[in-house]
Amino acid sequence: MIGIDWGTSSFRAYRIASDGAVRDRREAPLGILAVPTGGFPAALDGAVGDWIAAGETELLLAGMIGSRQGWVEAPYCPCPAGSAEIAAATIAIPHATARIRLVPGLSARDPAGVPEVMRGEETQIIGVLDAIGDAPATLCLPGSHAKWVQVEAGRIQGFATYFTGEAFAALSRHTILARSIAPDGAHHPAAFARGVARAKQPGGLLHHLFGLRAAALFGEIAEDEAAAFLSGLLIGHEVAAALESGVAPPIHLIASEALAARYATALDGFGIPHRSHAPDAAARGLALIAERIA
Amino acid sequence: MIGIDWGTSSFRAYRIASDGAVRDRREAPLGILAVPTGGFPAALDGAVGDWIAAGETELLLAGMIGSRQGWVEAPYCPCPAGSAEIAAATIAIPHATARIRLVPGLSARDPAGVPEVMRGEETQIIGVLDAIGDAPATLCLPGSHAKWVQVEAGRIQGFATYFTGEAFAALSRHTILARSIAPDGAHHPAAFARGVARAKQPGGLLHHLFGLRAAALFGEIAEDEAAAFLSGLLIGHEVAAALESGVAPPIHLIASEALAARYATALDGFGIPHRSHAPDAAARGLALIAERIA
Repeated sequence: MIGIDWGTSSFRAYRIASDGAVRDRREAPLGILAVPTGGFPAALDGAVGDWIAAGETELLLAGMIGSRQGWVEAPYCPCPAGSAEIAAATIAIPHATARIRLVPGLSARDPAGVPEVMRGEETQIIGVLDAIGDAPATLCLPGSHAKWVQVEAGRIQGFATYFTGEAFAALSRHTILARSIAPDGAHHPAAFARGVARAKQPGGLLHHLFGLRAAALFGEIAEDEAAAFLSGLLIGHEVAAALESGVAPPIHLIASEALAARYATALDGFGIPHRSHAPDAAARGLALIAERIA
Repeated sequence: MIGIDWGTSSFRAYRIASDGAVRDRREAPLGILAVPTGGFPAALDGAVGDWIAAGETELLLAGMIGSRQGWVEAPYCPCPAGSAEIAAATIAIPHATARIRLVPGLSARDPAGVPEVMRGEETQIIGVLDAIGDAPATLCLPGSHAKWVQVEAGRIQGFATYFTGEAFAALSRHTILARSIAPDGAHHPAAFARGVARAKQPGGLLHHLFGLRAAALFGEIAEDEAAAFLSGLLIGHEVAAALESGVAPPIHLIASEALAARYATALDGFGIPHRSHAPDAAARGLALIAERIA
């Protein structure tokens, strides 16, 4: 089969053998925002048409490709949901030679009744669930919209999203903080840890944000430290809020190596054990969901 | 005398009689960001040169005009500080015919030792202190960088700043939330109150920000309500953090009518009594500081 993790700004295709092994992989600059209206069939054929022609005619697509801005909208599947519920909620897309299905995103409600959504992360989560076991566990998937996910017995029970990555981008570029932040600097782990420690102090995020500006005015933080401090401050507030909402340690991190290292530092700062999972979770999740499709 | 509240984006001049009464007032589009390098003397003469020529040769300037980006940098005066300390820390600017002095900003440290600064608000605060009395009291001055100020016996003891207004501008314009927010809509008091109520729920600000996006996707908040909801959410988080840090009610609000109404709603949401002060506090503060200058 061919599994594709097709997001807002990324396209990752996997050619997967019947035993689940990844035989081949490809990335392309075909995130859904980069594809013109009506251009998804051509984009797909351009990226993996040779695999399809070679006989791989079973395709499963996950991620923002199933959103309102994607190819076809796949309605959210409500939690709790495991691979069976997700497989049953996949939808078909017509194609001349291949059988293509879209994985739906998941929806949930937080304790106050406010809606929650994810698209793409559910496939990564399915990919690590058997390694985690059946006991209640908490997963963290960092990103623009970071997800903290409660799982149990092979099903996603519910989740909460944090606006951390988007808040970092907007605050670091479009406020007076930009004047205190060196652009494109290298990561500064000590400043990141200072930001996490600051998040544990009283005062709230809005107060801590101004403190970064004032510290820069007083020469108490360098320009090449400020981005890492802000990142640590935001991730620290995310972790603090997630811990207050209740987690089942160790936290299972599904993230790129760089982001996993930051979250490991933040969780260490709160004394919470954690474990990192291989980043190929999406390919494995696509294979497991495909197995469940009749 | 002539008192001028000269900020980043505003210029407000007052002609003040010796009994403190405001005889005349002027606004001009001469915020310090709009004045070219070296252009402050000409800007001043253009705006109030006729008043100076008519014999008003005592001038006192407060606000960002005394910052590093202003005319001359007036070093911060450390808290605790009242009108006497502020008057003693004013600095002179040479002028052909007038005697001009600059009001310094104030600095403080929060309980964790992180620096705090204000420029301009100290003059407004001095302007309302005698109406407040000598008992410990808390003032709130909303804005891009909202200030919560502890005063006692005519002196500013310390203060905390919240990045509320800047965070609103960056998050509403430069994140995916912008897609859910009608531009330039009228204020929506009920949606503002819903945002305040959301801020009182668990989950943290970063989680609540994503909840606004998800609610919009599910049609649970209208585009013309979203800006007011976001404003209520941020101001609600500011108020919650300020209350946790300790306040002495009633909260004294120094703000434009529109902002004072929003903060009144937010404080009502937390059951905290409050009182609004007339917005001419800056003119009165300039007169009181001028009296103290030898």
